[in-house]
Amino acid sequence: MSQDPLVILMPSGRRDRVPAGATLLDAARQMGVEIESICGGRLTCGKCKVQIEEGSFPKHGIVSASAHLSPASREEQALLAEMHASGCRLSCVAAVQGDVLVFVPEESRAHKQIIRKSATDRVIDVAPAVRQVYVEVEPAALGHHRGDWGRLQDALAAEWGLSDLRIDLYALQRLQAALRKGKWTVTVTLWQDREVIDVQPGYAEGVYGLAVDIGSTTVAGYLCDLRTGQLLATESAMNPQVIYGEDLMSRISYAMQHRDGLDKMHKAIIDTLNKLAAAAARSANLRASQIHEAVFVGNTTMIHLLLGIDPVELGGAPFALANRDAMDLKARDLGLRLHPAANVHVLPAEAGHVGADNVGVLIAEEPYNQDEIVLTVDVGTNAEIVLGHRQWMYSASSPTGPAFEGAQITFGMRAAPGAIERVRIDPISKQARFRVIGEERWSDAWPAGPDVPVEEQPKHLASGICGSGIIEVIAEMFLAGILLPDGRLHPDCQGALFRWNGRKGAYLLAAGHQTTTGEPIYVTQDDVRSIQLAKAALYAGAKLLMNRAGVARVDRVVMAGAFGSYIDPKYAMILGLIPDCQLDRVSAVGNAAGDGARIALLNRRKREEAQRIAEWVRYVETAVDPAFQQEFIAAIHLPHAVDAFPHLDGLLPAAAIDFQPTRTRTRRVRA
Amino acid sequence: MSQDPLVILMPSGRRDRVPAGATLLDAARQMGVEIESICGGRLTCGKCKVQIEEGSFPKHGIVSASAHLSPASREEQALLAEMHASGCRLSCVAAVQGDVLVFVPEESRAHKQIIRKSATDRVIDVAPAVRQVYVEVEPAALGHHRGDWGRLQDALAAEWGLSDLRIDLYALQRLQAALRKGKWTVTVTLWQDREVIDVQPGYAEGVYGLAVDIGSTTVAGYLCDLRTGQLLATESAMNPQVIYGEDLMSRISYAMQHRDGLDKMHKAIIDTLNKLAAAAARSANLRASQIHEAVFVGNTTMIHLLLGIDPVELGGAPFALANRDAMDLKARDLGLRLHPAANVHVLPAEAGHVGADNVGVLIAEEPYNQDEIVLTVDVGTNAEIVLGHRQWMYSASSPTGPAFEGAQITFGMRAAPGAIERVRIDPISKQARFRVIGEERWSDAWPAGPDVPVEEQPKHLASGICGSGIIEVIAEMFLAGILLPDGRLHPDCQGALFRWNGRKGAYLLAAGHQTTTGEPIYVTQDDVRSIQLAKAALYAGAKLLMNRAGVARVDRVVMAGAFGSYIDPKYAMILGLIPDCQLDRVSAVGNAAGDGARIALLNRRKREEAQRIAEWVRYVETAVDPAFQQEFIAAIHLPHAVDAFPHLDGLLPAAAIDFQPTRTRTRRVRA
Repeated sequence: MSQDPLVILMPSGRRDRVPAGATLLDAARQMGVEIESICGGRLTCGKCKVQIEEGSFPKHGIVSASAHLSPASREEQALLAEMHASGCRLSCVAAVQGDVLVFVPEESRAHKQIIRKSATDRVIDVAPAVRQVYVEVEPAALGHHRGDWGRLQDALAAEWGLSDLRIDLYALQRLQAALRKGKWTVTVTLWQDREVIDVQPGYAEGVYGLAVDIGSTTVAGYLCDLRTGQLLATESAMNPQVIYGEDLMSRISYAMQHRDGLDKMHKAIIDTLNKLAAAAARSANLRASQIHEAVFVGNTTMIHLLLGIDPVELGGAPFALANRDAMDLKARDLGLRLHPAANVHVLPAEAGHVGADNVGVLIAEEPYNQDEIVLTVDVGTNAEIVLGHRQWMYSASSPTGPAFEGAQITFGMRAAPGAIERVRIDPISKQARFRVIGEERWSDAWPAGPDVPVEEQPKHLASGICGSGIIEVIAEMFLAGILLPDGRLHPDCQGALFRWNGRKGAYLLAAGHQTTTGEPIYVTQDDVRSIQLAKAALYAGAKLLMNRAGVARVDRVVMAGAFGSYIDPKYAMILGLIPDCQLDRVSAVGNAAGDGARIALLNRRKREEAQRIAEWVRYVETAVDPAFQQEFIAAIHLPHAVDAFPHLDGLLPAAAIDFQPTRTRTRRVRA
Repeated sequence: MSQDPLVILMPSGRRDRVPAGATLLDAARQMGVEIESICGGRLTCGKCKVQIEEGSFPKHGIVSASAHLSPASREEQALLAEMHASGCRLSCVAAVQGDVLVFVPEESRAHKQIIRKSATDRVIDVAPAVRQVYVEVEPAALGHHRGDWGRLQDALAAEWGLSDLRIDLYALQRLQAALRKGKWTVTVTLWQDREVIDVQPGYAEGVYGLAVDIGSTTVAGYLCDLRTGQLLATESAMNPQVIYGEDLMSRISYAMQHRDGLDKMHKAIIDTLNKLAAAAARSANLRASQIHEAVFVGNTTMIHLLLGIDPVELGGAPFALANRDAMDLKARDLGLRLHPAANVHVLPAEAGHVGADNVGVLIAEEPYNQDEIVLTVDVGTNAEIVLGHRQWMYSASSPTGPAFEGAQITFGMRAAPGAIERVRIDPISKQARFRVIGEERWSDAWPAGPDVPVEEQPKHLASGICGSGIIEVIAEMFLAGILLPDGRLHPDCQGALFRWNGRKGAYLLAAGHQTTTGEPIYVTQDDVRSIQLAKAALYAGAKLLMNRAGVARVDRVVMAGAFGSYIDPKYAMILGLIPDCQLDRVSAVGNAAGDGARIALLNRRKREEAQRIAEWVRYVETAVDPAFQQEFIAAIHLPHAVDAFPHLDGLLPAAAIDFQPTRTRTRRVRA
């Protein structure tokens, strides 16, 4: 046996001969398989455990036995027993003495991956900016004047190859006590392998991060375990700035017209972020001070306000950003109460009206890695639209207004329990049935009458209509012939319409006994107009980019944002929100901006990708393009230019115009 | 005339031919003469003005005339007239057309120098870490999405060759408004050519810095103009930590024994620094928010407390520092209210007991650039001693206690108006005369009696004895034969001694009518003992280093610290504070640590020098060296081993022992 022992690593199947005496950790490294290790071979962390496969493996030409490894010491046995890891060894100490077949379990792999649950089920590599390493530091001794930080730097260089480090004052303040309490062993928390942000005595573990999508209306936070990539908690809150203005322009105006406007809005969002971080931490049994990094996305106005920068320049041409690039800064400089030395990463923007939220959508969906032409629309108070594939990409912003979020809709509300999110209208009776968030049964299956036991009553009555609900009800009204293609209520449908608030022509969606207030919920002519304007703006923006790129059709449509994964692509296309596309190639991916923030939180290389893409994508200014107005006007109708939507064939109400109203319901609303 | 025009620059006398049409600024640069320019040739700053010498200069082989330069534009003429600079031109626009002789005035030279007023009159090159540059930035325009910060970076790269810049959030928050108010011209304040810390509209000037020496007892601040190097204000304050402990060890104990001890002492010094910065700014007609950088020196305990680091490790072997190296951090992270984006630089330490203050002394005195062997002693509550020259240097710390600062002396006080700083004792009568700070006349020249007009009365009566006063009075007592060489009061001198506070043997230094309280001021046997212990510690430390270095004598002695420039080297040597040396080679340089802080503030290259020297000097631990105790005991006497002080020959009281007391004064003190 003059040959070195053979090591095979499963499940990758990689194999190589290694010098006898090498540890399994070294062997794996030699084969390009990264096994996690925090303690660096000190039998403290147990992160590097591997399963030893015993027996004869003819397929692999190998006989593997535990005797082919150095025997386990008492410490190793104790640690493995504590971890209930029978049949396992710690790869940092188990030395190869003969051929061996080893299974590296998922949790021991250094580069973990997590599956993002969404329409596209994307895999995220876990390679965060914050990590922990355990080191043994040379004790202080008389005659050595290097200082404890100098000694720690020496240890980090020798054991982990880390150099050019700086230390945050917070960590420096705790260094000496930690070294002595840990008997000259400490766990160091590093940011970007550049800055020491914490030092804890002995062996410690736990690094956490918060990804936040700051929307104009809603703020969504995702608390993650930065070691495993696991999502620990999701929290959302209203953006408190809504009291200063519903949409971006009104907030910019508020900042312009009030001396303390910027300051108030900045403090309001910081305050909300602090509460959100605390709530997310609490629901994961953590404290906000354990959040070591935060990544933010948001539209450009939200990011300006987050950073305390006056958004006034975003209110008028040429829409100049204070800063387009990604930024790293100290959370404490913003007044954020996370870990005292935590850093904050803000994703870059593309242009004055296409912000970090859209960059988040892009790194989550990666249209720039596709061969097909993908149209990505992210609908919030503004809509950002990106068209392209790996060779080129154009982006634009379209002033849809907040109608898709349920705002400026008479009975609109955000997507919360009690919001009507699904609607069907009987084309004969013109009566609607609906489903609300938080109650699985459709409204026509709700038991009625005074004798219904509490447990059979609907969990939530209807409180209003959310974004996806308003899309569906208007599309269904059109399909049922209640709306004319130009958006007017059909004159022959008066029987289905009611007088509401002194005005004629309100469509009854929910009757008083179906609502929380006891008052009916209507869809008004104004609501229809709002949605028409919004969808025309969205469609015109997409069309403008298609014209600019010289393409007549798109291969895929990805809908992100406000109505999240709840929108039914069919209804989006019936209303003409998006250009024609094969229906099964239209997907709704929910809050992809938030997903992008989470991806950037978990993978620091994605931040570099974000910066590259943000600079690369070509921004098209819709506001100054005369073609935009033309496309917009042409897109007001429902559905505008039926020819443009071959994939809607058979879905549209051919007989809508010939509709004769029935008169089954005649109840009138109080004036 | 095929030759290029000849340009001669005075006073350097450098000469070179330059292409016709080159500006004088370019010509100077080509010749290695740096002329200041903030506005970069935009006729805004006027900093680059030079004097044009007209006439024939046979010695230089040149005829110079104003026609040999391009004519001055109306703007240039206007700016020169405003500056009252007749016969001058602005070198950034005056183009060379013929031979010309130019005088570059001191204020136009880019590398200014200032003279430090001290015993050694050192020259400081002004090359601070903070500077201002004026730039024109490309206006924002539709279709350009670089962001204002991106555009500013482009301008700074193109006009000033600056790259890899970051921007402090404070500056970013002000960037957009400044650019628009300044019509796309701004003055940028840069730190270390790495970070933008402020942006002001249009042309602006004014960068200021604060150098601070944090002593255990006194905090001294020096406010400087960072462009000219000029000292604008000096402020000092008591270190408020004295209420938690007079000396270092008692403050360390306080931190150990009180849960909030560190926090209290940290807050106390920060509070005092804020007040000191505000006071210094006020007396220079500035605001503290205009202080763009601060440099700190102090002993290691003071620096730990400044940074909020528990000093407990400095209280016992092995005296480990949290950090030995220089540090840069944000002033705001320490709670300092300077410019909102100001940075703080802390000079490095040498070892656990030789701190940034000693490094300050070293870069001010530069013994490491000397050929002679220099002994540098910096006397505060601890004494730091450095011995060496350009080839080697040793440092040590010696526990002198605070006696030299006037503390632990019965009637001791700090050097303030009313403190006795000079003493002479008549060897026959044994009576003292003295001088107090703030009054030029010696006490025996003070007019007495009820009819003295107010303007002839002493400006200050005596309030106590400061450091240099206690040295002089004890040395004079010895010279007058009142003290025996072992420090005891001479038994034959009872006539000159009084009972004070129930104890015998107090020497009357000032009578009641000469003091602010109306009570006499005495020197007690305890005071003599305190000074003996302190001077023995200082001498033993110096001796230890001489032994370590294997040298029998030193060429020069530099005394820095507590008793400042006021100590008379003769008395220091009579008491045996310092080893023997030729008297005219002993100099007292005052607060050299503070000077070092000021030098590091004004010259960033000196910071690198400080870091190099701090690592290079070899620290000798006195506390654990048995030789130290021997030297200490041998040095208790006054003067110990007369043989060791050949340079005192003739100064010592040969006949002291034979002294017969006279009985001219017999007044007794109230019990």
